[in-house]
Amino acid sequence: MKIAFIVFDGITWLDIIGVYDPITRLRSLGYIPDLSWDICSYKQEVSDNFGLKMSTTRIKPNLGEYDAIIVPGGLGARRLQFDEEFLDWIRTSLKVKNKVSVCSGALIFGAAGYLRNKRATAHFLELNALKPYCKHVVDERIVEDGTVITAGGVSSSIDLGLYLCEKWAGKEAAAKIRERIDYKK
Amino acid sequence: MKIAFIVFDGITWLDIIGVYDPITRLRSLGYIPDLSWDICSYKQEVSDNFGLKMSTTRIKPNLGEYDAIIVPGGLGARRLQFDEEFLDWIRTSLKVKNKVSVCSGALIFGAAGYLRNKRATAHFLELNALKPYCKHVVDERIVEDGTVITAGGVSSSIDLGLYLCEKWAGKEAAAKIRERIDYKK
Repeated sequence: MKIAFIVFDGITWLDIIGVYDPITRLRSLGYIPDLSWDICSYKQEVSDNFGLKMSTTRIKPNLGEYDAIIVPGGLGARRLQFDEEFLDWIRTSLKVKNKVSVCSGALIFGAAGYLRNKRATAHFLELNALKPYCKHVVDERIVEDGTVITAGGVSSSIDLGLYLCEKWAGKEAAAKIRERIDYKK
Repeated sequence: MKIAFIVFDGITWLDIIGVYDPITRLRSLGYIPDLSWDICSYKQEVSDNFGLKMSTTRIKPNLGEYDAIIVPGGLGARRLQFDEEFLDWIRTSLKVKNKVSVCSGALIFGAAGYLRNKRATAHFLELNALKPYCKHVVDERIVEDGTVITAGGVSSSIDLGLYLCEKWAGKEAAAKIRERIDYKK
């Protein structure tokens, strides 16, 4: 099982770290021993709007190689929904079975054409912007429709991480990881 | 108001990003316009145990310059509690009015001598390790005792971030930021 975490300038770090934390414990706690992931972007290092920088591990790989791609939000996502070069790269994930977004990351999936005829959600301030891309925009924490899973704003990333833990490794794994990260229901 | 976020190899990223996100919104939403912060460490770039790397902005500054220092946990914190050179640097924060830890970061404060005669908490798996350093170890989400605030495991970092928002900018600011990051009570 191989995951691509997508990062970009103007990211909201909690959007991705909130899902990264529970998921990576699937490997460290032994639930999915062969789980692997890359931090993917169009450049070597990306920064949030405050200047906090993280290094990426792969630049523009073919995303079709992955079992899951996870796209966070942030002010950068609003801009990237209009960047055709970036969207063409994202579209290499068309056949990926788990296309997952958090927060305003849904706008990128929308612009890539992944939400046509689908129910989807995003950060509550971006629901209107999401409408032109979807069949139904809903204000729910996590929405799964076919191969696409969209989650709400920022902190819903942790719920999303636990949701994916359950989907990929079962209820017991998700419950153990929830306990380990001390996340209350 | 000037904050030092302390980072190190073997960090749990969610420990720090969960508190970084709400706090930095105190500036972007205009509640504390002159809020500033540094990402401080003993080296240029630090990594979690999976290899996810972030850049630091200051190397071993005198922490006495700051109004708050925030120390996260992770496997690295367990090791650093026995690293006297690292602890000597942390001790430059002795007079800082807000000495804040998340998760196993409390072990670093304990080893630095900051928890003597104090109530404190940590990740629930580290409460025993914390005992020799404290007057009372308690299993609570957030514990404030004098100039030291300790928080529980991993996801309690978000609660801690909102707690500090309220402490520094009031209930209304904290409520607004909680709403913005879509964090349910």
